[in-house]
Amino acid sequence: MYKLLFVSSLFLFSGTLKAQTDDSIIIRKIADEILMNGNAYENLRVLTKEVGGRLSGSPGMYKAEAWGQKILKDMGAEKVWLQECKVPHWVRGGKDEAYYVGADGKPVQLDILALGNSVGTGAKGITAPVILINSKEELEKRNIEVKGKIVFYNYHFNPRFVETFRSYGDAVVYRVFGASWAAKYGALAMITRSMSDAVDNNNPHTGALEYMDSFPKIPAAAVGLWDADKLAKAIGENKELKVFLRTNAKMLPDTIGHNIIGEIAGSEFPDEYITVGGHLDSWDPAEGASDDGTGCVHAIEVLRALKAIGYKPRHTIRFVLFANEENGLRGGTKYAEEAKEKNEKHLFALESDAGGFTPRAFTIGLPADKLDRIRKNWIPLLETYGVYKFDEGGGGADVSPLSELLNTTVSELEPDSQRYFEYHHARNDVFANVNKRELEMGAVCMTALIYLVDKYEFQ
Amino acid sequence: MYKLLFVSSLFLFSGTLKAQTDDSIIIRKIADEILMNGNAYENLRVLTKEVGGRLSGSPGMYKAEAWGQKILKDMGAEKVWLQECKVPHWVRGGKDEAYYVGADGKPVQLDILALGNSVGTGAKGITAPVILINSKEELEKRNIEVKGKIVFYNYHFNPRFVETFRSYGDAVVYRVFGASWAAKYGALAMITRSMSDAVDNNNPHTGALEYMDSFPKIPAAAVGLWDADKLAKAIGENKELKVFLRTNAKMLPDTIGHNIIGEIAGSEFPDEYITVGGHLDSWDPAEGASDDGTGCVHAIEVLRALKAIGYKPRHTIRFVLFANEENGLRGGTKYAEEAKEKNEKHLFALESDAGGFTPRAFTIGLPADKLDRIRKNWIPLLETYGVYKFDEGGGGADVSPLSELLNTTVSELEPDSQRYFEYHHARNDVFANVNKRELEMGAVCMTALIYLVDKYEFQ
Repeated sequence: MYKLLFVSSLFLFSGTLKAQTDDSIIIRKIADEILMNGNAYENLRVLTKEVGGRLSGSPGMYKAEAWGQKILKDMGAEKVWLQECKVPHWVRGGKDEAYYVGADGKPVQLDILALGNSVGTGAKGITAPVILINSKEELEKRNIEVKGKIVFYNYHFNPRFVETFRSYGDAVVYRVFGASWAAKYGALAMITRSMSDAVDNNNPHTGALEYMDSFPKIPAAAVGLWDADKLAKAIGENKELKVFLRTNAKMLPDTIGHNIIGEIAGSEFPDEYITVGGHLDSWDPAEGASDDGTGCVHAIEVLRALKAIGYKPRHTIRFVLFANEENGLRGGTKYAEEAKEKNEKHLFALESDAGGFTPRAFTIGLPADKLDRIRKNWIPLLETYGVYKFDEGGGGADVSPLSELLNTTVSELEPDSQRYFEYHHARNDVFANVNKRELEMGAVCMTALIYLVDKYEFQ
Repeated sequence: MYKLLFVSSLFLFSGTLKAQTDDSIIIRKIADEILMNGNAYENLRVLTKEVGGRLSGSPGMYKAEAWGQKILKDMGAEKVWLQECKVPHWVRGGKDEAYYVGADGKPVQLDILALGNSVGTGAKGITAPVILINSKEELEKRNIEVKGKIVFYNYHFNPRFVETFRSYGDAVVYRVFGASWAAKYGALAMITRSMSDAVDNNNPHTGALEYMDSFPKIPAAAVGLWDADKLAKAIGENKELKVFLRTNAKMLPDTIGHNIIGEIAGSEFPDEYITVGGHLDSWDPAEGASDDGTGCVHAIEVLRALKAIGYKPRHTIRFVLFANEENGLRGGTKYAEEAKEKNEKHLFALESDAGGFTPRAFTIGLPADKLDRIRKNWIPLLETYGVYKFDEGGGGADVSPLSELLNTTVSELEPDSQRYFEYHHARNDVFANVNKRELEMGAVCMTALIYLVDKYEFQ
């Protein structure tokens, strides 16, 4: 409260600054609406607890699509429709299993999850010697040792990066490409240390891999951090160690999924679009709370709050629950392709896909002069609510095709990243690990940004 | 990483800015030490799980004092000593109980906790009509109705405040003074809605009250939010509703507690002191994780990190685990009083007592010119690690007597406040609700600030 008054009093004496005072009043209204009457947390409860996991092609996907249509209507979208797209249909196919035989002759179980898009081992599983590989460089050096073995990548999440997404970017190549890197040298299967900094549990973290066409497709799975350490130690103590691995995964033919789109029409520029969204699909072992239930309910809350305060947008605003971000980006791609076909003008697209944690920033793709201007004019309006900087950068994955195909300005909410990779693609990505107030603060900042872009564009 | 390089390259071409580059290298070293080899989380585990709750005068207090001495020595303090002070000795005395009789004639239990410093009801408890009071204004208006009743304050935590400490400041007067306000008009006991915004549980939140001498001391307790709503509804449906309340609390004579102090001597100004601390005491129903185990391990981590990077401070730095913040402030008061008696020069005192959440700011008590200067010079160094502003304000409660008696510049770490009042003084203030990375980021920023103050004072 103090800060709002402070900002207002600073800006009493000029035209531009008078506008900022008016804007600060509107944004305070938005915040009051969300903090006092917010629906995002309850919507997330329903999505995570009643719909649950919703991987592309799974029964959960269809349930989630029905939920999304209904909620967008209920929250005030003037038009709601489904945009069809082909989506991959990968299935886990049963419980993943792995163990090695300990020094006492007894099997030591490893808690694993097959990686998304991976092939299975077959019903009998694979038993093979395991080779510990700490880095890509080590793999290249020791490539002749790999043949006929299971490669275990033990590359660690780097704790030095303050932004954990940088640690993820650094490590995730092992999950995405590690199977093909190993297959190139004749490996039979791959197990990777999870892309996580969780210290208080052993959950494996799944996520998509990509097979390179030139190498055989080998089964691949992730182990949690405790088991990764345990396995590395066992290999250290027994260079002949063998691992048994059984995964049942397979890729079925593509199936049909949908982007769920709600719209409110613009009063001045009905043919110019602003998009705000999250992705509706999520990995199967959990509820998809932080990835990306929070992004979906953020987008829906922007809609609800704008309607609740009676805001009439100048541009048409679309609220999109994207299909299939996780293992294909088919929804985001389809959305941009259709926009290009129809020659639509897309001014701006904002995604929330980094969790429902306390907001700190937006990344945004703008030329330097415009970036400077919005920093100067908009940060004073947003910082009361947690966003104190615009970082140069792209938008969320689902809006990036809009940037590529239509040169749309894209953006992503940057919540505090410290907790994200404790939950990401793991069993504990559940409703209980999302905080109501933090979630709401993200929705406040997103709604405020949409309001500012709608009002000023980037002028 | 990117940001560090960015800051460095900006500041290559001037003397002051060269100093900032050197500082950014030192602060990066501090961050690396804490993020890669940090002990704060493990220290917190021991304090919360092996020591546990540690209210002044309780067996836990003595256990915590022994732990504090040992850990300060282990982490490299050159000198460790105990500073004796009298502390209040309040005991809960057994399980608190309350219920009312529902419409079906069956008792409806309320989950309550007696407030700290409160008197008990006596073994038989109190059964009396209950009056619902929503605000102090309502109490004053309806004061003649209060006599012989149990007053139930149902004042809500205000969700409009972005900083939850403002909501707390707004509501906590009911906990602190509500018993005496009600006793003035002849109330027999007081129950208050908890000072919390938790939505997913019914935990009551205790905390200290203060009796005013002019009115009778009446028993007082807190109910969680679900039960507060339930009780308010029941009163709405039955104006004659009676509540049974039994608390067993009593205040015993003062006993002896201690501030635990570790020190590393200054190389240039050994007789000028910088203090960094948290408070060691905590409420009895929980483990005292966020209040204020995190502050204790923050201070200890500052010590460990400075030693680990081989930093030789110019001023003497004291690491203080304060006694009895919660219901007396006797430790902080004693520390300042003895400093005044000895005519010590205390340059700066920093406390962490707002949780181990991701850091955002420091409050600091400085004149405008100095505040402007540190904003300009130090924020570019700290913002990479989460602290992007210095807010005008005082320090933590335990260092405030230093400000009053010796005019010391005092400061407090301001972590993100959204989650704090879910746990504050409640059963769920436990280790599991502290995140390792967030805790470490706070320690990084505190160590960096201590380094900057030691190097530059506020010049």
